[in-house]
Amino acid sequence: MGERYHLEPQTGAGFTLERGRLLKITDPRGEQVSDLTAFAREDTSEWLSSGRSIDYANTIYLTAGHVLYSNRSRPMFTIVEDTVGRHDFLLTPCSPEMFKLLYGVEDYHPSCFENLWRNLAPFGVTPDMIPTTFNVFMNVVVLPTGELRIDPPPSRPGDHILLRAEMDLIVGVTACSAEKSNNYSFKPIDVEVL
Amino acid sequence: MGERYHLEPQTGAGFTLERGRLLKITDPRGEQVSDLTAFAREDTSEWLSSGRSIDYANTIYLTAGHVLYSNRSRPMFTIVEDTVGRHDFLLTPCSPEMFKLLYGVEDYHPSCFENLWRNLAPFGVTPDMIPTTFNVFMNVVVLPTGELRIDPPPSRPGDHILLRAEMDLIVGVTACSAEKSNNYSFKPIDVEVL
Repeated sequence: MGERYHLEPQTGAGFTLERGRLLKITDPRGEQVSDLTAFAREDTSEWLSSGRSIDYANTIYLTAGHVLYSNRSRPMFTIVEDTVGRHDFLLTPCSPEMFKLLYGVEDYHPSCFENLWRNLAPFGVTPDMIPTTFNVFMNVVVLPTGELRIDPPPSRPGDHILLRAEMDLIVGVTACSAEKSNNYSFKPIDVEVL
Repeated sequence: MGERYHLEPQTGAGFTLERGRLLKITDPRGEQVSDLTAFAREDTSEWLSSGRSIDYANTIYLTAGHVLYSNRSRPMFTIVEDTVGRHDFLLTPCSPEMFKLLYGVEDYHPSCFENLWRNLAPFGVTPDMIPTTFNVFMNVVVLPTGELRIDPPPSRPGDHILLRAEMDLIVGVTACSAEKSNNYSFKPIDVEVL
């Protein structure tokens, strides 16, 4: 029996994950995005790289069987199960600056960026080190023109993704705080280490 | 009259660029990719972010009028002119590990990754700090399935992109070393600071 984290809406968690362990991220209510990032436990200069992962998978939609790579081209995770099949690896976590630039929000707004760096700070991760995240269940469609359309997450209650750690990791995970990405309703995310 | 760099095939350059200056990258022979990255001159913890730039432009194909943002959501460049209109911001610079993983190359192979970090090392940039680059003239097509197809660059002899620096920058730029990205022939790249 491993650890469990019940992430309340608009919150996050940071923890270490041993090589060989399984990380299960579940959307208990449906239509909720969860941002995931990781660093090598032995050296936080090694980080989860969208560019390397997309290049080696040769697709922007990574799913079961695909490997998530670090900036050093070493496997960090293998996706073992995926009941949804749609996750975004193009966009960065929502942040105070994003809410201001895209939606004119001047007041405080919870964000995946803050929820990642605050929960990863105890492991030596600073805000500037947060790379482009793997946005689990996020439904970003690339139109033929290259333009992006953010649709509601296709995840239904109980849908999950299961990832195997391929090295000792520091992991950050959130229940996403952006209105549009979550069909305008914030829900929890369940995380289990198996 | 500013600086000029004639990049021989499979080479690169690193230099500082003052706010307000214009950076012109020209493909003198056609069908040649040039990888571009940048860091804030006052603090190299601030880097060119594909995720932020794609998010704020709402497209994967950034062109004239679009802004390239840092991880802190501050403008680094504005694209002022673009005679091609197709540049990739999804994939990372070609690297020794990439040539090995994707093409089975075991021997030494020149790479944009090496050409960036070697030329940026004098400015305090280490290999692990190289983010997903803006791959100028690179023709990455996203198929409806999400799969990627790398086509020959659409640039013809003399085509260029012109970018205005929106902050004081450290800039790295290459003449790309990957066979497939350059239609299997390596050509020079011309760089001017105006």
